[in-house]
Amino acid sequence: MELGLIGLGNMGGNITRRLMRAGHRCVVFDTKTETREALAKEGASAADSLERLVAGLKQKPRAVWVMLPAGKITEDTVNRLAALMEAGDIIIDGGNSYYKDDLRRAKELSAKGIRYVDCGTSGGVWGLDRGYCMMIGGEKAAVEHLDPIWSALAPGIGDVARTLGREGEPSQAERGYIHAGPSGAGHFVKMIHNGIEYGMMQAFAEGFDILRQKNSKELPEAERMDLNLSDIAEVWRRGSVVTSWLLDLSAAALLKDPALEGFSGFVQDSGEGRWTIEAAIEEAVPAEVLAASLFARFRSRQEHTFGEKLLSAMRFGFGGHLERPKK
Amino acid sequence: MELGLIGLGNMGGNITRRLMRAGHRCVVFDTKTETREALAKEGASAADSLERLVAGLKQKPRAVWVMLPAGKITEDTVNRLAALMEAGDIIIDGGNSYYKDDLRRAKELSAKGIRYVDCGTSGGVWGLDRGYCMMIGGEKAAVEHLDPIWSALAPGIGDVARTLGREGEPSQAERGYIHAGPSGAGHFVKMIHNGIEYGMMQAFAEGFDILRQKNSKELPEAERMDLNLSDIAEVWRRGSVVTSWLLDLSAAALLKDPALEGFSGFVQDSGEGRWTIEAAIEEAVPAEVLAASLFARFRSRQEHTFGEKLLSAMRFGFGGHLERPKK
Amino acid sequence: MELGLIGLGNMGGNITRRLMRAGHRCVVFDTKTETREALAKEGASAADSLERLVAGLKQKPRAVWVMLPAGKITEDTVNRLAALMEAGDIIIDGGNSYYKDDLRRAKELSAKGIRYVDCGTSGGVWGLDRGYCMMIGGEKAAVEHLDPIWSALAPGIGDVARTLGREGEPSQAERGYIHAGPSGAGHFVKMIHNGIEYGMMQAFAEGFDILRQKNSKELPEAERMDLNLSDIAEVWRRGSVVTSWLLDLSAAALLKDPALEGFSGFVQDSGEGRWTIEAAIEEAVPAEVLAASLFARFRSRQEHTFGEKLLSAMRFGFGGHLERPKK
Amino acid sequence: MELGLIGLGNMGGNITRRLMRAGHRCVVFDTKTETREALAKEGASAADSLERLVAGLKQKPRAVWVMLPAGKITEDTVNRLAALMEAGDIIIDGGNSYYKDDLRRAKELSAKGIRYVDCGTSGGVWGLDRGYCMMIGGEKAAVEHLDPIWSALAPGIGDVARTLGREGEPSQAERGYIHAGPSGAGHFVKMIHNGIEYGMMQAFAEGFDILRQKNSKELPEAERMDLNLSDIAEVWRRGSVVTSWLLDLSAAALLKDPALEGFSGFVQDSGEGRWTIEAAIEEAVPAEVLAASLFARFRSRQEHTFGEKLLSAMRFGFGGHLERPKK
Repeated sequence: MELGLIGLGNMGGNITRRLMRAGHRCVVFDTKTETREALAKEGASAADSLERLVAGLKQKPRAVWVMLPAGKITEDTVNRLAALMEAGDIIIDGGNSYYKDDLRRAKELSAKGIRYVDCGTSGGVWGLDRGYCMMIGGEKAAVEHLDPIWSALAPGIGDVARTLGREGEPSQAERGYIHAGPSGAGHFVKMIHNGIEYGMMQAFAEGFDILRQKNSKELPEAERMDLNLSDIAEVWRRGSVVTSWLLDLSAAALLKDPALEGFSGFVQDSGEGRWTIEAAIEEAVPAEVLAASLFARFRSRQEHTFGEKLLSAMRFGFGGHLERPKK
Repeated sequence: MELGLIGLGNMGGNITRRLMRAGHRCVVFDTKTETREALAKEGASAADSLERLVAGLKQKPRAVWVMLPAGKITEDTVNRLAALMEAGDIIIDGGNSYYKDDLRRAKELSAKGIRYVDCGTSGGVWGLDRGYCMMIGGEKAAVEHLDPIWSALAPGIGDVARTLGREGEPSQAERGYIHAGPSGAGHFVKMIHNGIEYGMMQAFAEGFDILRQKNSKELPEAERMDLNLSDIAEVWRRGSVVTSWLLDLSAAALLKDPALEGFSGFVQDSGEGRWTIEAAIEEAVPAEVLAASLFARFRSRQEHTFGEKLLSAMRFGFGGHLERPKK
Repeated sequence: MELGLIGLGNMGGNITRRLMRAGHRCVVFDTKTETREALAKEGASAADSLERLVAGLKQKPRAVWVMLPAGKITEDTVNRLAALMEAGDIIIDGGNSYYKDDLRRAKELSAKGIRYVDCGTSGGVWGLDRGYCMMIGGEKAAVEHLDPIWSALAPGIGDVARTLGREGEPSQAERGYIHAGPSGAGHFVKMIHNGIEYGMMQAFAEGFDILRQKNSKELPEAERMDLNLSDIAEVWRRGSVVTSWLLDLSAAALLKDPALEGFSGFVQDSGEGRWTIEAAIEEAVPAEVLAASLFARFRSRQEHTFGEKLLSAMRFGFGGHLERPKK
Repeated sequence: MELGLIGLGNMGGNITRRLMRAGHRCVVFDTKTETREALAKEGASAADSLERLVAGLKQKPRAVWVMLPAGKITEDTVNRLAALMEAGDIIIDGGNSYYKDDLRRAKELSAKGIRYVDCGTSGGVWGLDRGYCMMIGGEKAAVEHLDPIWSALAPGIGDVARTLGREGEPSQAERGYIHAGPSGAGHFVKMIHNGIEYGMMQAFAEGFDILRQKNSKELPEAERMDLNLSDIAEVWRRGSVVTSWLLDLSAAALLKDPALEGFSGFVQDSGEGRWTIEAAIEEAVPAEVLAASLFARFRSRQEHTFGEKLLSAMRFGFGGHLERPKK
């Protein structure tokens, strides 16, 4: 089928490529000329404005996938698109929007008859070949209309062992996408996915930190080991309980750069990790590990917190300890 | 080759089976007669005492694998075995001993010339077919002597994608076992594996809890969704960042019993989770997520903590709030 | 001076009393007839509607203190009051509103010339005699106009030792109230106060839990102690680092009911604890302890979480452990 | 009465002074000549060796207070003292020993008839004037024999309001010391005191951090406030729920140095905070806040953890994010 795509960065560009590989016609736009021209060379129909992109879509209802950073730019683009489209047309927000924004936008656009679909898209730089895992929210008919798109982008059943109890024709979920529910549900599920991802990452981070510190010259010699972290990551990849894609990535990173000297340790977080905690709080669900994972990233971006200085100040107050950095 | 095995429960029994499948000769002992006889029918040579087990081993140096619960029973068995063995013989502790016990035992046994090998063994009930992931500590020559054993028990390279940068003949780590270091190193690495496992499990637990609570009738209707948790687990199995064996198990459990009514929520912990935190503290490594995961299990086993009652008592003290359970 | 007061519960009633003790004239309203009549007998001028309350205020600008639960009822009351008042008049929200609601309300009311003051009020059931600690936000002139009110309600300098470096005439802060900043600042500071309160309470809760468990018959006899918790709380009240009002309250509670059997352990939380975490997240400040304190309260209100059942389900999946409650 | 004292640092020196003020005879030793001579000028009887100190004690049973850092130096001193003393004599360890060391030492010394008393001593640099809060473990007769010492060192009933329900002659607890239980109980209770102290400190640290960050130029101007932290600390000292000595110290620190520029934020921890978590783990008590407080200190002493670098490495692996410090 035919799809418009806006935003041709790492994600949007490869989504376009994967769709074209499956025979879909893509009309694409990006503010960077060279980016859209590169895709044109690969077979996309490049438009140099939103107007031309919408005009270039021949099939009705028209469908446009917006793949931009969450926030103002997505909001503005959705609104501009909506002004160019007509009742029945579909706008897909495939980025990382906050699900409450989806709820609002879907309602606003429905006044004009435009159908808004939110799609949480996981897969990163590997998606082109590995496929994208998609969690989709919105009106049933619109989501079903786009099935050829989801189907082309999804990983498919692949060689993953079938879950015990799953039988017959593989379901959408087994092929790598789900219609999670009404508007917002797609991004809500993707948000929780990322929250879990933070927790799993932090579990590995802490575990490897304890392993590595066991090699440290700060420990008395009798307590010290000489553990090979990349071999440990590798051995866990087969037959252990912590087998996972994040472990695969860790094994590759530790093999290439055992001391991880290429990384500063300054770790960004994105909206989903934060919103996950806010959702937990709204629902009164304890989420200690997910919160701690987020806070570890906040902490990683500061040299010293004001709070730590206050700890020192109190210690000085009651005990006369004057604390200076270790030499 | 030939191996003695003591303790023929879920783990020990299947380890014996997997070794026999590979052509090794197993002399086995268990305090339960029927257990050892069952394995005898499958081809093992059953001994009805430790003495007869040791006597039944013909190859020198003799090697005996102890697969018993950590603590007193392992300690006693190792000591009784050592008394029956001679210089050069090898005792393998394949259970979940504390690595500091390994250090002590290895030293004690070395006085008699007996070689002690600690092996952290992951794989659970799936190990017979999936293979066991093994992390091994001890003297190099002893570990190398046992290579046919490790090799038979390990999963082997299988169909797991090779880590970028790994080349040539697959290493031991790629085949599912490593010689992690001197005595204690095997169980130390296994301990951290389990610590990470706790953290990953808790990340999934919290995430699915937030998803499920989103369906709750306690939420205002406009905020409520109707999320299908088993489909969500299933869709994440392909192409997402949280792909993992623990997710596979979650998907199967949620498919079979979507409300998990077959489980009480009373969650045990084992020594490894606790020792991981103690290791973190000894090394001064922050391990927030791993600790929180352990504490969540402690909390799961109590109806109300005394600490929570004290919170209520303080609230009553300053605010006159008298707290009772929600009806 | 003269003040209208709306909401005569535990807090509002005693605030009225403390103001009348200081010679201020109070015009009061509560939806419960008997509540307002009780205060009328103590000298207040009771009004049976918001209209009569406003009409009963003779001094211009008029000032009315709203002391109602945060949320819709406060919002509605402020709006109804504003409709009855005129430019220059002052509405004080002394409850526990979210500071972002203050920002919005102050802006809305300023269109009409009405001045909105937010006042975070700490003191609970003890405030009548001990005084109220107040954190105030709003326009400088309005806050200054109300100084006789703040001054009467505040604890005053009392017999608390003066902070080293504070000299001369005691400041407002030393007398127990501050003009914290513009609209919202009062409730923002009070919100953080409560966040810290949660953390301190949880620190005591955990500490006393560890002390009490040391007496438990579940421990081997050689490890068990027979600690007297009320004496421990009492001894810490003098000369220790943890001396605090919360400790005073704990000492009284543990003396009266050493096993705290009068409390269920079901612990409520209020908006401030939640908003504190949201503020931390907005500012990217790690707030591990404050978040953990909030989550402990969430957890206290459930028998078992769905997440814990999922932990059990995963353990069953990989290890065949079937977990049931301890008998 | 008469007491020997070993270790005349901040704590030991002032303990000697407070005892002399109460009329007790002190025989003192410190490895630093000038330290012991300074106390001799204030009236103590200085000995230049442990032997002379023991010989200088005339009253039987002799009693010696050891006030040295926990660990080897305390252990060695206690053993050397024991060799110089005789059955019935008393050794007090007033430092911060691990309570399991007390249990062992008490048992070892009892073979010789020497009585070992463990005393957890809180008070820091303020103890000389404010008195010391003491938690004491050991044999009843020995603890009672030393009552004049405890009584002189303790703060006494002072002007702290009496706990509701406490009547008649003030108990020891109300005067600032308790006989907590058998050997080890004193240091166990002191250990938990410090654990709670860490939690309370961290609660203040996080709360003030959120307050301060609200002033940050990194926030959009509309969200920014200009909060005066020292006034906030001051106002909470009267009538609020977080009133505490740690708040008093924070108020003084923030008044003197509002940005706390005199402190690096590099925060030490001591054995008690760590042992508290180990005790919680032994007892299976969830202690999330106390653990998080300890980990925050570990984290404060590192620029970046290896774990954080691994987070970055994983993010690079799945998303191509290359993370560098913020400029």
